[in-house]
Amino acid sequence: GATVLPNSPEDAELERVANPEAGTDYLVRFTQPEFTSLCPMTGQPDFAHLVIDYIPGEWLVESKSLKLYLGSFRNHGAFHEACTVSIAKRLEELLQPAWLRIGGYWFPRGGMPIDVFYQTGEAPSGVWIPEQNVPGYRGRG
Amino acid sequence: GATVLPNSPEDAELERVANPEAGTDYLVRFTQPEFTSLCPMTGQPDFAHLVIDYIPGEWLVESKSLKLYLGSFRNHGAFHEACTVSIAKRLEELLQPAWLRIGGYWFPRGGMPIDVFYQTGEAPSGVWIPEQNVPGYRGRG
Amino acid sequence: GATVLPNSPEDAELERVANPEAGTDYLVRFTQPEFTSLCPMTGQPDFAHLVIDYIPGEWLVESKSLKLYLGSFRNHGAFHEACTVSIAKRLEELLQPAWLRIGGYWFPRGGMPIDVFYQTGEAPSGVWIPEQNVPGYRGRG
Amino acid sequence: GATVLPNSPEDAELERVANPEAGTDYLVRFTQPEFTSLCPMTGQPDFAHLVIDYIPGEWLVESKSLKLYLGSFRNHGAFHEACTVSIAKRLEELLQPAWLRIGGYWFPRGGMPIDVFYQTGEAPSGVWIPEQNVPGYRGRG
Amino acid sequence: GATVLPNSPEDAELERVANPEAGTDYLVRFTQPEFTSLCPMTGQPDFAHLVIDYIPGEWLVESKSLKLYLGSFRNHGAFHEACTVSIAKRLEELLQPAWLRIGGYWFPRGGMPIDVFYQTGEAPSGVWIPEQNVPGYRGRG
Amino acid sequence: GATVLPNSPEDAELERVANPEAGTDYLVRFTQPEFTSLCPMTGQPDFAHLVIDYIPGEWLVESKSLKLYLGSFRNHGAFHEACTVSIAKRLEELLQPAWLRIGGYWFPRGGMPIDVFYQTGEAPSGVWIPEQNVPGYRGRG
Amino acid sequence: GATVLPNSPEDAELERVANPEAGTDYLVRFTQPEFTSLCPMTGQPDFAHLVIDYIPGEWLVESKSLKLYLGSFRNHGAFHEACTVSIAKRLEELLQPAWLRIGGYWFPRGGMPIDVFYQTGEAPSGVWIPEQNVPGYRGRG
Amino acid sequence: GATVLPNSPEDAELERVANPEAGTDYLVRFTQPEFTSLCPMTGQPDFAHLVIDYIPGEWLVESKSLKLYLGSFRNHGAFHEACTVSIAKRLEELLQPAWLRIGGYWFPRGGMPIDVFYQTGEAPSGVWIPEQNVPGYRGRG
Amino acid sequence: GATVLPNSPEDAELERVANPEAGTDYLVRFTQPEFTSLCPMTGQPDFAHLVIDYIPGEWLVESKSLKLYLGSFRNHGAFHEACTVSIAKRLEELLQPAWLRIGGYWFPRGGMPIDVFYQTGEAPSGVWIPEQNVPGYRGRG
Amino acid sequence: GATVLPNSPEDAELERVANPEAGTDYLVRFTQPEFTSLCPMTGQPDFAHLVIDYIPGEWLVESKSLKLYLGSFRNHGAFHEACTVSIAKRLEELLQPAWLRIGGYWFPRGGMPIDVFYQTGEAPSGVWIPEQNVPGYRGRG
Ligand SMILES: [Ca+2]
Ligand SMILES: [Ca+2]
Ligand SMILES: [Ca+2]
Ligand SMILES: [Ca+2]
Ligand SMILES: [Ca+2]
Ligand SMILES: [Ca+2]
Ligand SMILES: [Ca+2]
Ligand SMILES: [Ca+2]
Ligand SMILES: [Ca+2]
Ligand SMILES: [Ca+2]
Ligand SMILES: [Ca+2]
Ligand SMILES: [Ca+2]
Ligand SMILES: [Ca+2]
Ligand SMILES: [Ca+2]
Ligand SMILES: [Ca+2]
Ligand SMILES: [Ca+2]
Repeated sequence: GATVLPNSPEDAELERVANPEAGTDYLVRFTQPEFTSLCPMTGQPDFAHLVIDYIPGEWLVESKSLKLYLGSFRNHGAFHEACTVSIAKRLEELLQPAWLRIGGYWFPRGGMPIDVFYQTGEAPSGVWIPEQNVPGYRGRG
Repeated sequence: GATVLPNSPEDAELERVANPEAGTDYLVRFTQPEFTSLCPMTGQPDFAHLVIDYIPGEWLVESKSLKLYLGSFRNHGAFHEACTVSIAKRLEELLQPAWLRIGGYWFPRGGMPIDVFYQTGEAPSGVWIPEQNVPGYRGRG
Repeated sequence: GATVLPNSPEDAELERVANPEAGTDYLVRFTQPEFTSLCPMTGQPDFAHLVIDYIPGEWLVESKSLKLYLGSFRNHGAFHEACTVSIAKRLEELLQPAWLRIGGYWFPRGGMPIDVFYQTGEAPSGVWIPEQNVPGYRGRG
Repeated sequence: GATVLPNSPEDAELERVANPEAGTDYLVRFTQPEFTSLCPMTGQPDFAHLVIDYIPGEWLVESKSLKLYLGSFRNHGAFHEACTVSIAKRLEELLQPAWLRIGGYWFPRGGMPIDVFYQTGEAPSGVWIPEQNVPGYRGRG
Repeated sequence: GATVLPNSPEDAELERVANPEAGTDYLVRFTQPEFTSLCPMTGQPDFAHLVIDYIPGEWLVESKSLKLYLGSFRNHGAFHEACTVSIAKRLEELLQPAWLRIGGYWFPRGGMPIDVFYQTGEAPSGVWIPEQNVPGYRGRG
Repeated sequence: GATVLPNSPEDAELERVANPEAGTDYLVRFTQPEFTSLCPMTGQPDFAHLVIDYIPGEWLVESKSLKLYLGSFRNHGAFHEACTVSIAKRLEELLQPAWLRIGGYWFPRGGMPIDVFYQTGEAPSGVWIPEQNVPGYRGRG
Repeated sequence: GATVLPNSPEDAELERVANPEAGTDYLVRFTQPEFTSLCPMTGQPDFAHLVIDYIPGEWLVESKSLKLYLGSFRNHGAFHEACTVSIAKRLEELLQPAWLRIGGYWFPRGGMPIDVFYQTGEAPSGVWIPEQNVPGYRGRG
Repeated sequence: GATVLPNSPEDAELERVANPEAGTDYLVRFTQPEFTSLCPMTGQPDFAHLVIDYIPGEWLVESKSLKLYLGSFRNHGAFHEACTVSIAKRLEELLQPAWLRIGGYWFPRGGMPIDVFYQTGEAPSGVWIPEQNVPGYRGRG
Repeated sequence: GATVLPNSPEDAELERVANPEAGTDYLVRFTQPEFTSLCPMTGQPDFAHLVIDYIPGEWLVESKSLKLYLGSFRNHGAFHEACTVSIAKRLEELLQPAWLRIGGYWFPRGGMPIDVFYQTGEAPSGVWIPEQNVPGYRGRG
Repeated sequence: GATVLPNSPEDAELERVANPEAGTDYLVRFTQPEFTSLCPMTGQPDFAHLVIDYIPGEWLVESKSLKLYLGSFRNHGAFHEACTVSIAKRLEELLQPAWLRIGGYWFPRGGMPIDVFYQTGEAPSGVWIPEQNVPGYRGRG
């Protein structure tokens, strides 16, 4: 159906569902190659490829609400560093995960891309956390 | 011959054979790029690329029965997270391995794929456990 | 400076400059991996990687205006096929090029991406037109 | 919503919509990496990666109905060669396209994969038809 | 079941089945990355990656018999050039295809690999024959 | 030794030497991934990966002088299109080659790279001219 | 606007802005594939691909000033090892980061490239620091 | 010369030579992409890509005898797991290495490949042991 | 055995054997990634990756003599262009092939590699001649 | 100028220069894809791709002398294992580095390549030592 994209991250209703495997440690990875926001200085569009990893506790994020939440940055001004970290913090608050991290791989501005890597703290031992292995920026040739 | 695909994971008879190298620690990896199940909400097909690693104890999984067990999800509704973890738990119960893990690399829904990573606990030292290195999702371009 | 993104393709002022090498046949390729529009049915965002090739006549497209024109689809509803072709036709009208083509490589919807390939007609002989070689969609694994 | 997967290709209602760019020659490519059918000899699942290219005439295929049509092979027995060609012929009948082709890239059986390549005839000149460039099968190493 | 590998290509019974799409021009590609024969000079094993393309007429090759035929070179002495071409000629004789080709990509001997490319003649127009695109030999680094 | 980089393309002394295989048609390709010039509007640096192909007549370009000529753009303002084409024309004038082309693969500005492809005219038949196959720009992910 | 490139690293005014996420540990990565300096022995141009990682404390580097600072090496003589390390030290002095590293991947001289890897000391635990994974130099083939 | 391939692993004479760098810890890696054995159940050929790493003590394996030993599995029935581990044990017995491991990357059977990873125990610290990084199995697409 | 490397190309005895498939048109490709010669100006070593394609007439080149012939450039001074073309001409003279070509992919000197592409003339129709597809030079990043 | 290649490693004068960043821990990597020596048994050429990493103390190796030293193996007989390790030991003696390692990636002999990995001992903590990530040997396909 015709779900309306929220106007801003604040307006987005990020939802959680009960973790069907609560009590078991595992990692969930979401890859969102379709992220866009606005530059708060110039209003021009920014684009990023995002990868979010988390070890759920009692809750899983509800997938469709996550998609809408990420979509809500479309008309929202945000600096690369703060934007990436704020997504993690919003999920952290909602999900109270055992652990969470986000990699934000931003498209180049001025020919020079920025990547932002954040995690909630030391990774727990005994849980499998593969590297994200998003290729580095290459330029040309 | 014309082996019948089991109707559901519960119907599948997963079998084990004696480990010919029992007493030696080594890792076995199965890669199944041909996995499909049904979405329990919509009934629509889901697809995944699965990689299973285990360190056998007394038992190896019998390969053909593993193939049929994985094939039995074909007409079975299962959420990504629970489906991936349940396959590991079924193998764990049957094989009592020294250690086991599964990576479930699901095809995108709503443009955003989910990966699920589960292991039975801290990896034993002294056994060689290479990374799975399944490429991340790229989108386009 | 803070250039304002046009509200729609119709509002965008696509500009041309004199071709400094008019009289010489050559090909210009623009690659825009940061394209987004809205689905006219659901209002949800769509993303594409675009590659535009043209053989200029009297005119070159002015780069910044091209960027703003492509950016103007951000809040605009457009079907994949018509959107891709309409970009080519707008450029064709403005530039009167010897020849032009566009490849639109859209991100998957329902797990199945669409590519759209359009050119203004038979490619002229004697001009070098390399293939775009954008990798096909891979899914997972 | 909960669309029901058709029981067989015959049951699937493949639909067409008016081509919004009728009168313009262009190519549309659909990539479906999530295709599965049954082996008519053994009843065991087969998997394929499909890429369909067509030059629309008066009609476009309606995307969701195409997805359901392809999904309808899930419980249907079909040989690789005939299955691939039959999909093309069904689309040809419905769409009366200027031209159409399909590449079926099947997963290995007995360690040896089959690819099937079909087109409706000589490709029209003046229309851009990029190669599909699906990587060849590699085995291991 | 326990099919016996033929002792030599002469002993192998290569079989054909009726082409279910006779009257339609299409291409079938078999990839066999598991080919081995013996060097007729030294008796040492040789290995190759083979790719066979053909446009069937009245007949398709029966897949299992093709696998056994290729397997029958295992204890058979054959030079790279003649071995590759002879496989094509055997298939040509059996299938009377509209057209056929084989690429034999042999592992290096003396550090220098040989590839052999053979086809039955000019490729028919109007049939789609994608390139095989097997990567060239790289050495190290 | 300490060769001085010329101040501008005009100051660079591009030299030629006799073609040791004059009378034989062959192609020479130079790849220069270390090219930089200045934007004539802003004075900011631009970078490109260049690939030059030519079929020599009586003359070969002297390699070191070619390197210095390309290096002479370092402090020189030049638009992407004109810069790429002018390099070809300078070589054409000096060498009077049977045929020549240049691919200029420029780093992105405003997130959108430009490629420029120029050749002196229809490629002669009977000479082998492989594609340059420089990978397209990918953005991120 | 037409910002003037500084004449030397000493002349470049590298600027810092307040870290909007001060108090949170995260990593920022800048990739600059467009770096060039001069060889202090011969005056000839050198090129490098640079990747800078840092964990900000109170300050972030201001992106445009970083670009100009890196651009200021254009007419500056610097040995590979010292140049790479000096960039890190300049940033360290300005930003007082929790940790910083730089990878300098230099283009080959004499056919043999040099890479330089420097970090300010032991990486802090609990912060996510992905590998840079810049591909090694390959030569040809 | 015409060395005769041994009939079985038992018949193969695996030889050792004095380690010219005895007393120095280093790793030797052999890659054998040309391995084949027989399935003990069906007699059909199996293929594998093998990578063997070891830290020599007093002895190195003699290369040609290693090649013949691996070749001796050609007409020998062996299960994937036991075959891979037994090669390591044979080398271990002969060489008394400081440490040894083997990765066996088997071609798919039933569409699902098996990898086997074995090492003699905890890797010694202070010796450099790079990952084998053999790509995972991909299926198609 | 201990074959002696010839001192120069003139000293090398390149040999031919009867084509076992004379009367059939096919292509043979040799890849030699281990080629080295000397720079005639400086005496310093040069390296190249060579790929030779030919359509045999009455004769095949004898592989070991080809290896020794290519090895004979080791202490021989030769310019890139002339060296590559001369190898082709020597083979042409010996083999009288229906057609022949060589690609010489030289390692960079002064940071800029040269490729040389030569063929004996227009390629015959009806014979399959795949592209060599040796990757272009990339520099770094 | 015309520097003479030393006749043997013993004749090569490997030189050192003062480390301009002495007192700072960093890693220097040299990649030499153009290495060749002779087989001491047969006199035939061997080729390798070498990667050398070191953490300098008071000294850096002088680049040109390193190139000549590596070039001096051209007419020198050396076994793969001893050759690789001896290069490291020569550098260790000259430079007294904090740490050093070498990876020798040799081209296949008998179809089976050898890699040799040596380091001077446990890597120091607090210094960044990226993996060399030279791709494994692939064979064909
Ligand atoms: Ca940019
Ligand atoms: Ca890791
Ligand atoms: Ca690792
Ligand atoms: Ca989707
Ligand atoms: Ca082309
Ligand atoms: Ca094409
Ligand atoms: Ca070899
Ligand atoms: Ca092509
Ligand atoms: Ca083609
Ligand atoms: Ca071509
Ligand atoms: Ca082509
Ligand atoms: Ca790591
Ligand atoms: Ca199989
Ligand atoms: Ca160089
Ligand atoms: Ca071609
Ligand atoms: Ca690592």
